[in-house]
Amino acid sequence: MDLKSLIRDIPDFPKPGILFRDITSLLRNPEGLRYTIDTLTQKCKDAGLAPDYVVGMESRGFIFGSPLAYQLGAGFIPVRKPGKLPGAVHTIEYDLEYGTDRLEIHQDAFDPGSRVLIVDDLIATGGTAGATAQLIQQTGSELVGFGFIIELKDLGGRQKLPDVPILTLVEY
Amino acid sequence: MDLKSLIRDIPDFPKPGILFRDITSLLRNPEGLRYTIDTLTQKCKDAGLAPDYVVGMESRGFIFGSPLAYQLGAGFIPVRKPGKLPGAVHTIEYDLEYGTDRLEIHQDAFDPGSRVLIVDDLIATGGTAGATAQLIQQTGSELVGFGFIIELKDLGGRQKLPDVPILTLVEY
Repeated sequence: MDLKSLIRDIPDFPKPGILFRDITSLLRNPEGLRYTIDTLTQKCKDAGLAPDYVVGMESRGFIFGSPLAYQLGAGFIPVRKPGKLPGAVHTIEYDLEYGTDRLEIHQDAFDPGSRVLIVDDLIATGGTAGATAQLIQQTGSELVGFGFIIELKDLGGRQKLPDVPILTLVEY
Repeated sequence: MDLKSLIRDIPDFPKPGILFRDITSLLRNPEGLRYTIDTLTQKCKDAGLAPDYVVGMESRGFIFGSPLAYQLGAGFIPVRKPGKLPGAVHTIEYDLEYGTDRLEIHQDAFDPGSRVLIVDDLIATGGTAGATAQLIQQTGSELVGFGFIIELKDLGGRQKLPDVPILTLVEY
């Protein structure tokens, strides 16, 4: 299936000069949604990642991380913006183009010694994914890989990530 | 399966006097996640809802709505907070305890004449679900039902919703 034909390009969003890759046009297509989840699941299996948990980042990472966890027979762990998780959390602050942002994970998210896969819709500069990897390091669990639907290769995000397999479905 | 045993109670979150029903303890349990999605899927089938699209509300509605859409062979449509969707949107403003909030949906989210199911993690006062139902009315599509993992019955949320089937898994 040609996933790119289901991803809509929206110029000048969220600001002038940015070409936004919109995955809502993929999600609304039942065959596109199914193919995306099935293909990411198969790539995880082929790579032998066998995660105990899939971590998804708020908000679009939830859309792909949760069905992937279901398909892999893993648990799903949300990484959220500050103040959203009700239990005790680990926090990471990371740099944006202007200023900083923070992400949180429950301290008791993982059983000890677990294998963890990080999933998001898109990797651009790698800031969010790299910060999430550091969060998982704080919990003491083992990061076994990353899964992204879209990779924006020119931004070089994967160079910022730890040396584990990085699975992607579509590259620009 | 006793889903309630997997839902964690956290007192005084997000503010004093509120007992928060935390579904992250359910999501991290592979059997709990699988049972939740499978049971909601089966309830939809038993009720004959046959939606073309599942709508999930940012952010926790994404976690349940996306795998439900996958299982039902439907498309997934995100309803988001203002400024997050890149295309032309319908907007609804609705009342909170203090002040108001807004939700948005893409104007071209649904094919004409579609059947739509709304999914969220929890129904409390019904404000968010009712506002989402109004958004779907703006698109001209047909709302065929609601699905919630948790219903807080004392808050009477279902009385605020249109007269369509309301599927729930756990009641407090």
